[in-house]
Amino acid sequence: MKNYSIAKSRRLRSTPYTSRIEKQGVTAYTVYNHMLLPAAFGSIEDSYHHLKKDVQVWDVAAERQVEISGKDSAKLVQLMTCRDLSKSKIGRCYYCPIIDDNGNLINDPVILKLAENKWWISIADSDVIFFAKGLATGKKFDVKIFEPNVDIIAIQGPKSFSLMEKIFGKKITELKFFGFDYFDFKGTKHLIARSGWSKQGGFEVYVENTKSGQDLYDHFFEIGLEFNVKPGCPNLIERIESGLLSYGNDFDNHDNPFECGFEKYVNLESDIVFLGKEKLKKIKSEGIKRKLMGVQIETKEISLTGSVNIMNIDGNLIGDLRSACYSPHFKKVIGIAMIKEPFCKSSETGKLEIEGKSLALKVCELPFI
Amino acid sequence: MKNYSIAKSRRLRSTPYTSRIEKQGVTAYTVYNHMLLPAAFGSIEDSYHHLKKDVQVWDVAAERQVEISGKDSAKLVQLMTCRDLSKSKIGRCYYCPIIDDNGNLINDPVILKLAENKWWISIADSDVIFFAKGLATGKKFDVKIFEPNVDIIAIQGPKSFSLMEKIFGKKITELKFFGFDYFDFKGTKHLIARSGWSKQGGFEVYVENTKSGQDLYDHFFEIGLEFNVKPGCPNLIERIESGLLSYGNDFDNHDNPFECGFEKYVNLESDIVFLGKEKLKKIKSEGIKRKLMGVQIETKEISLTGSVNIMNIDGNLIGDLRSACYSPHFKKVIGIAMIKEPFCKSSETGKLEIEGKSLALKVCELPFI
Repeated sequence: MKNYSIAKSRRLRSTPYTSRIEKQGVTAYTVYNHMLLPAAFGSIEDSYHHLKKDVQVWDVAAERQVEISGKDSAKLVQLMTCRDLSKSKIGRCYYCPIIDDNGNLINDPVILKLAENKWWISIADSDVIFFAKGLATGKKFDVKIFEPNVDIIAIQGPKSFSLMEKIFGKKITELKFFGFDYFDFKGTKHLIARSGWSKQGGFEVYVENTKSGQDLYDHFFEIGLEFNVKPGCPNLIERIESGLLSYGNDFDNHDNPFECGFEKYVNLESDIVFLGKEKLKKIKSEGIKRKLMGVQIETKEISLTGSVNIMNIDGNLIGDLRSACYSPHFKKVIGIAMIKEPFCKSSETGKLEIEGKSLALKVCELPFI
Repeated sequence: MKNYSIAKSRRLRSTPYTSRIEKQGVTAYTVYNHMLLPAAFGSIEDSYHHLKKDVQVWDVAAERQVEISGKDSAKLVQLMTCRDLSKSKIGRCYYCPIIDDNGNLINDPVILKLAENKWWISIADSDVIFFAKGLATGKKFDVKIFEPNVDIIAIQGPKSFSLMEKIFGKKITELKFFGFDYFDFKGTKHLIARSGWSKQGGFEVYVENTKSGQDLYDHFFEIGLEFNVKPGCPNLIERIESGLLSYGNDFDNHDNPFECGFEKYVNLESDIVFLGKEKLKKIKSEGIKRKLMGVQIETKEISLTGSVNIMNIDGNLIGDLRSACYSPHFKKVIGIAMIKEPFCKSSETGKLEIEGKSLALKVCELPFI
């Protein structure tokens, strides 16, 4: 497939680390929350193998925060998500589907409870800040909503624990999954969570002090030689194999949380108030008509730039493929597809056409691994 | 400056014309409303000269529509903009700053009044749909809000009138600026406005029937040879010379409409109800502390990837440069900058540093031409 340049401008914001990753050999960008997000440092497959073996440092500043504080902040945050946050704790991260009045998805952020009346919504690629502002204004909530200067560095991979321990000491290895705390780097406190957009383990540093964050970024490479540390970015292959879903790629505002396998984050039984609750109750009682499933395709390469229709043997449309890559683990192409009932079961077969070639596929469960 | 690839995926949506422009030689993309927007077909300067002389066909499907209909639609649309729409007419386009509760900008769309209770908000690059949904839910408005399948083709340049007349007949040349009407192409009606993101004159076809729109796209090139028609895209040089502002580049949610020169679209005297009205009254009475101005820089090339600080001769920060390009007309670099009081007057001088080079600049009025 031909390569096209990205036309840079202020509208596609750089991050505090952009000049660093450009020196380190970033080759491709995507745009995420109006910001540059590195998408490749040369071969994605090489980077995949490295991520599963060693440790990578990622510029994921494009994971922007929506800060919501003030007297009604908990009420507003709860109103936006179908996950019950009534027992949420300070110092914890919560994966929360954000739902509109129709029961459809607007985003799937991780929400950090910083204090009883202070939250960070760490967003996927859509302007949650304007949804929050609209709701808060309409409801006359007493809240303050803004995008703080937080530019995340992710440290991912099995050796991330050793690398982080070398800098922050033993205490950081005791952080529980999706817990966060504050750690000192040369006199500056950083909020660090045990989280990240891979299944290889790791941490995310929510950098508020830009200068210290840039020093920390450099420090990872200065002292990480023994762990074979390399720059990296969310890896298409690793995230599909692990079944990590991507808003905009695998699902969007036309899909509901049941269709996306988010059942366990939909709390319809409690008496919490959130948007789309009645719609979701109706959807649940009627049953969904389609669902995100895995597919395996008998080919060695694929390059997806949009949805691709999936037909069954009778020529009927049974769904659409939304993300795909060659998987070194399965030695074939795997992908994530929205499959219609009654075809969303793992015995189902189908085919799709890409660049004039017809390819056979098999439906399977998610996650792949 | 080094080129970086854009990593395509479903999240950066293709348009119905993407495969066509790729055959026609598009070389760079930007991302706009989560969609691919062509940014260059080879040299931007060559394209600039062509646009000012002949006619171009642009894939601007990334100008997405937010459709708002229903009983309370006029109330919701008015609530979002500081421009008085109480006397707005069906068949007209209105350039409308969208304002939040703090009096800051969220977008600067063109709003089309399709019927008394049906509007299209033709948006710049931010998710206005979620702001509208948040507000409508919070206010319990009786409205329907969604993104319709509308993929705009723009026809821009002095010969656009002849090209359009050849297809749609004399009637289309009688369309007033920012007026729209429905025109037939081989049996399909298309909404066509006399508008577009250049000052060279032209039209925008709001394509709802994708197949007919693709045929029309091809038809422009089949019959446009005599007008030297070429594919193109919003042109950085032409839009800066003409002083067409860009949300995200020249201003964003940290700026208010007075700072951006939108005074004539801020109607504080009428009794219409819109967000941020009291804030804007206060800002107006206190006076603004900075303003978007032009700058002229004594150099032959520039490549801006973000804001650049502007200092005066005493070394004080007087503003930041947000967009810039080499202007063949002025034979120097021109740009758009947010300049602080008391420095925002056309006699002011300053300097900035780009890639280690210090460059002298002069502040001037907008638009340049």
